[in-house]
Amino acid sequence: MLRSLLRTTKACGVQVNQRSVRLSSTKHGKVLTVETMHPLVKSVEYAVRGALPIRAEALSAQLKKDPSKLNFDKVVFCNIGNPQQLNQKPITFFRQVASLCENTELLKAENRELVSKLYPADAIARAELLLKNIGSIGAYTHSKGVPHIRENVAKFIERRDGYAADPENIFLTQGASEGIQKIIQMLTHNTKSGIMIPIPQYPLYSATLSLVDAAPVHYYLEEKEDWGLSRAELQKSVDEARNNGVNVCALVIINPGNPTGQCLSEENIREIIRFCHDERIVILADEVYQTNIYQPERRPFHSFKKVLQSMGPEFNEQELFSFHSTSKGMIGECGRRGGYFECVNIDPAIMDQINKISSISLCPNVHGQIMVDLVTNPPAEGDISHAQYKSEVDTIYQSLARRATKLAHCFNALEGVTCNEAEGAMYLFPKIDLPAKAIEAAKEAKMAPDMFYALSMLDHTGVCVVPGSGFGQEAGTYHFRSTFLPEEHLFDDFCGGLEKFHKSFLDKYRD
Amino acid sequence: MLRSLLRTTKACGVQVNQRSVRLSSTKHGKVLTVETMHPLVKSVEYAVRGALPIRAEALSAQLKKDPSKLNFDKVVFCNIGNPQQLNQKPITFFRQVASLCENTELLKAENRELVSKLYPADAIARAELLLKNIGSIGAYTHSKGVPHIRENVAKFIERRDGYAADPENIFLTQGASEGIQKIIQMLTHNTKSGIMIPIPQYPLYSATLSLVDAAPVHYYLEEKEDWGLSRAELQKSVDEARNNGVNVCALVIINPGNPTGQCLSEENIREIIRFCHDERIVILADEVYQTNIYQPERRPFHSFKKVLQSMGPEFNEQELFSFHSTSKGMIGECGRRGGYFECVNIDPAIMDQINKISSISLCPNVHGQIMVDLVTNPPAEGDISHAQYKSEVDTIYQSLARRATKLAHCFNALEGVTCNEAEGAMYLFPKIDLPAKAIEAAKEAKMAPDMFYALSMLDHTGVCVVPGSGFGQEAGTYHFRSTFLPEEHLFDDFCGGLEKFHKSFLDKYRD
Repeated sequence: MLRSLLRTTKACGVQVNQRSVRLSSTKHGKVLTVETMHPLVKSVEYAVRGALPIRAEALSAQLKKDPSKLNFDKVVFCNIGNPQQLNQKPITFFRQVASLCENTELLKAENRELVSKLYPADAIARAELLLKNIGSIGAYTHSKGVPHIRENVAKFIERRDGYAADPENIFLTQGASEGIQKIIQMLTHNTKSGIMIPIPQYPLYSATLSLVDAAPVHYYLEEKEDWGLSRAELQKSVDEARNNGVNVCALVIINPGNPTGQCLSEENIREIIRFCHDERIVILADEVYQTNIYQPERRPFHSFKKVLQSMGPEFNEQELFSFHSTSKGMIGECGRRGGYFECVNIDPAIMDQINKISSISLCPNVHGQIMVDLVTNPPAEGDISHAQYKSEVDTIYQSLARRATKLAHCFNALEGVTCNEAEGAMYLFPKIDLPAKAIEAAKEAKMAPDMFYALSMLDHTGVCVVPGSGFGQEAGTYHFRSTFLPEEHLFDDFCGGLEKFHKSFLDKYRD
Repeated sequence: MLRSLLRTTKACGVQVNQRSVRLSSTKHGKVLTVETMHPLVKSVEYAVRGALPIRAEALSAQLKKDPSKLNFDKVVFCNIGNPQQLNQKPITFFRQVASLCENTELLKAENRELVSKLYPADAIARAELLLKNIGSIGAYTHSKGVPHIRENVAKFIERRDGYAADPENIFLTQGASEGIQKIIQMLTHNTKSGIMIPIPQYPLYSATLSLVDAAPVHYYLEEKEDWGLSRAELQKSVDEARNNGVNVCALVIINPGNPTGQCLSEENIREIIRFCHDERIVILADEVYQTNIYQPERRPFHSFKKVLQSMGPEFNEQELFSFHSTSKGMIGECGRRGGYFECVNIDPAIMDQINKISSISLCPNVHGQIMVDLVTNPPAEGDISHAQYKSEVDTIYQSLARRATKLAHCFNALEGVTCNEAEGAMYLFPKIDLPAKAIEAAKEAKMAPDMFYALSMLDHTGVCVVPGSGFGQEAGTYHFRSTFLPEEHLFDDFCGGLEKFHKSFLDKYRD
């Protein structure tokens, strides 16, 4: 009894004597504090929206109040692949269909004449087809997403790969991130559960592993080989982890790469699949940048699904999850949080379990689902809207390709900076040789050297990038990630500002 | 070395001999199975979308193929509060604004004349205001949501409660569920972390606690007292849990209740707050049904925030999270996944942490955010669209109130069934006295007796409800939850079918 009265309670984590809690209940103080909250949540880091973007927001606010105190007239957010934030235009057809699904009054007979002056017939027909299959977009759908839309996704995958796809293996999600987090949660048990992730990586992976308290098993991409990846490196990484008692059960591949922009060759993908097969490792293929391909002759996109299917019956049980999104490509509909993943060779009982946990959040938002339908099933040749659709996509693509090249040239022209060209995705990840004095100054400021450099860039130019330390990098090297999304007509100014800043930074800290 | 070669690996959970894995790698088999997946994910139950709705979907599919084999011509989904699935009309103004934000071409000068024939001026003005503050709805927003929308939410709370609200304390979310899951994740550490939840409860809570491996600490609602709640019951529950070594740090209150439909009196809320204050317990107030109030004179809605603020400085540190949604009320925009929570007396450092984990999923979807703006800031008196808005809301409200009463009468007229009237929410939770023979038959069928009854109802009538065992109920009692959302013109038929079924069920199993 005494023991029970005096036992300690860990009310949200802090060791508190139960009796003293009862007695001191009027002296309140917070129950939920950074000390008492879940330590794993506390330990999570997420650099893409970390300290630097928070400072960038503060600078934005300052510009609105008193621009005279700053050397620049706007903050340019290159920390995140958010094209429409930097004025990329949405695809007209997609928005037309989405707005008709939203306001079904427009589809009524009495409005048809007026509406046909504002909307092409194929947009109206598509909206009607979607609504017939969805019902109201204000209702919860099946937790896996609307069956009709999953059928369209399956057809898209079949056209892309030349292999069958089953709508029942497809789960619609709120952006790719939600699906990735769910699968990682299912795969990992504890601190000894390991998932292989590239270094550098997109911090969703490290953050999610940190949240579920599982072990990130790093494998390094080879900067000198255009951020390529060798089976030897994978083997070294898994052997080391297993020798340390880590139970490696899955491998994350980001292809095209984020932050690195590489696009894997078919042979390389085959090698990775063989490795996973031999080592009994589930593949998580993050393929959200599959249409952001800038060297299509030399480095076309190959999906993991297609390459796996081509490898014959020996690989018929190799498990693969492939993730896609409406946020990237030439679409850039990030705010909508649309995406899907396909399960390849996944145990049907596992898919039932995924369906069950998906149902706790009821369903992915319907607007995101509609965008998945449109992205995977755009106007076809012969459709009224096809020419405009094609022209919009091509214009964005060509401009992105030009900006990718331009920014890589800009970086490579800077003293002490080397940068691989982007084969894919939306980012460059240049390496910077920082002078010893700059590293010293960073140390004094209690910052990672690349954070110190990036913060200085932000304060001098208004350009917000993400330091390499947010993605992981080889020890002793420094990088940053920048999108190449600033508008093309501003691009020369943007590059000029970076050049000027870099020179002045080096002049200040030159050894 | 031998030890390292022979050590067992728990690749996704199963104990496997490492060497045998290597040698047998060509005989593949799945890596990820129900046996190897995370056991917590496996253990989760979520009845609202569980076995019964899965059967209901199968019946729906069968009706499409061959309706002659079934006794009914449609499946009626009363398992989930999904009004637009059952043809509730969306609010016209909300959809108009949302569609203009979606298709900004409509706002261009050259289209203005045509568009003004389709849209009222206040919808156009609202869309322009939102777009000015959001930018493109295709871009990621701040992880907490668009500041302008959070300001409008704060004003809504101020109007509702008469106390100040700070936009910085408000987080927009994808439905209420996402916010609730995030807060529970922050509050709990391990199996000894306890959160008090009502019995019966909405299974989001039990499922989430199961996922994070924390302890649900049950307190019982008093069916005979209109599902009311006493401090004595709360005290008994917390004392018992703490005596068992559970560290109780938070209390979930669902008000108005789900599945029970009760609406707490101000005095009762005051008592609960005092209890939480004395016991150092954070309050999680699920207030998503705050406008679904059917006895407004006797049982008006009081927010926990308002009552807390009225209790004076002694309670200035009492921590409260209050959750709201766009899915319920007279709105029913479930598919959009919009919601928010307000943090009251929460440590600012904790809010920074919530912002950080929110940023991993980048932002709540923008369409949900726009709906939060509209729901909290609808057309005001004097606005062009006010009359129509008011008439639509009133019509839905009055019809819901009539259907609530009608269904309660229907249930109470059934032999062996008693049902409290709904003070709020969208559900009734009748108690059924099942005959011993039915309980025996359920046992033989390896089902909970209320599941057996509900499944029989589904198979005979096409009406899908959720058995009480999915929400929790006093041992030895049986209930089910049904929405009262079927369309009013079908309601007599709906009730008639239930009566007929119930009678035939009793006749079959009468003792």
